Amino acid sequence: MSRAVVLLSGGLDSSTTLGIAAKEYEELCALTFIYGQKHEKEIESAKKIASHYCVEEHKILNIPLSKIGRSSLLKNGEKIPEHQGENIGESIPSTYVPARNMIMLSYALCYAESIGADAVYIGATARDYSGYPDCRPEFFHAFEEMAEEGTERGLEGSPVKIKYPLIHMTKGDIVKKAHEIGVPLRWTWSCYKGEKKACGECDSCKLRLKGFEEAGIEDPIDYVEKDP
Amino acid sequence: MSRAVVLLSGGLDSSTTLGIAAKEYEELCALTFIYGQKHEKEIESAKKIASHYCVEEHKILNIPLSKIGRSSLLKNGEKIPEHQGENIGESIPSTYVPARNMIMLSYALCYAESIGADAVYIGATARDYSGYPDCRPEFFHAFEEMAEEGTERGLEGSPVKIKYPLIHMTKGDIVKKAHEIGVPLRWTWSCYKGEKKACGECDSCKLRLKGFEEAGIEDPIDYVEKDP
Repeated sequence: MSRAVVLLSGGLDSSTTLGIAAKEYEELCALTFIYGQKHEKEIESAKKIASHYCVEEHKILNIPLSKIGRSSLLKNGEKIPEHQGENIGESIPSTYVPARNMIMLSYALCYAESIGADAVYIGATARDYSGYPDCRPEFFHAFEEMAEEGTERGLEGSPVKIKYPLIHMTKGDIVKKAHEIGVPLRWTWSCYKGEKKACGECDSCKLRLKGFEEAGIEDPIDYVEKDP
Repeated sequence: MSRAVVLLSGGLDSSTTLGIAAKEYEELCALTFIYGQKHEKEIESAKKIASHYCVEEHKILNIPLSKIGRSSLLKNGEKIPEHQGENIGESIPSTYVPARNMIMLSYALCYAESIGADAVYIGATARDYSGYPDCRPEFFHAFEEMAEEGTERGLEGSPVKIKYPLIHMTKGDIVKKAHEIGVPLRWTWSCYKGEKKACGECDSCKLRLKGFEEAGIEDPIDYVEKDP
């Protein structure tokens, strides 16, 4: 049986990535992190999505990122700023968590090597750019090379593959793809604020809404109603 | 003030690395992991060593490696094998923890970027080779390139440096260096078994004892007495 590990936050991108992985591998294991994020609510989404795809195992790991990392995305961090508007992607936003993707991919690689999985999937996208350095293709290429040098599988000549199928997709492309392959979008969570309804105002909500608009599909989740 | 982060397990190599870093940077922060290792006793050593060097901050992080990683070094793993003798370094031993150095270096990078440190030190050595793929210079070079691509500091052109000053030293060289710069070797702990006294038989003890012998220095820690 071919097997892969999928990093699953419970958002639009990682859920779509799980949907894609489900078409390419027979057995899937999902890996989700509680890392002190304000929007811990996404974990419940991750559980529903993992269950929808009947993953073999869904590991939810509590990692102490907030004990060492500085970011407005973390519970002990400053306030998450409102949407950056036209400037999004031009500078690194305060929601950047240093080395987050590196840490998560490293855990995923540990997991993959331990259970004999052949690939690790991550739902990063470099189009509609978040401004995060660790969402760029250059980073993933470098990570792959590092993983080849630093693992048993790499030295044996059959390294665990790092797969980032959304990297060149716009948010609109991702929504279309998700819709096409039947990802249960109503269960996904993207808002950074993690309140009862999505705020519709943070960078993550704005990018998501832009995606649905571009795809011409209605976003099935609830948003806070704006004052008229 | 120049500042660096040092990965400190409490063993001979990382303690010597902290001693070296103390000569190169004005302020030091130490980072130690509880990751389900059988020899959790090394944490007490790490605390003493960090305190000896008056580090600015010593973070001890509990990370869930044993929930996903397979290794005889972990509490839920198989028995640690006896010393491999002449064959040490020829194959990857069962004490290998997949992606361990990758995960720890990624945390250290997160910490360094968050506190404005300029370097991360790790006490890996490729001479007297343990057989671990992630103790090879090729791995560290690749990690440096990946860190450059995946961090804010990297994109700004002033990446956090990854320093591995012991990489080409034999265990004998390390003991000599430690002795020369006054590392409190009596507090270090290397034995994989983590019992009251060092076993003297596991790979880690054998390598340590070989180092003291080569250096012509007596190891100040207690070992289990062998039957005559």
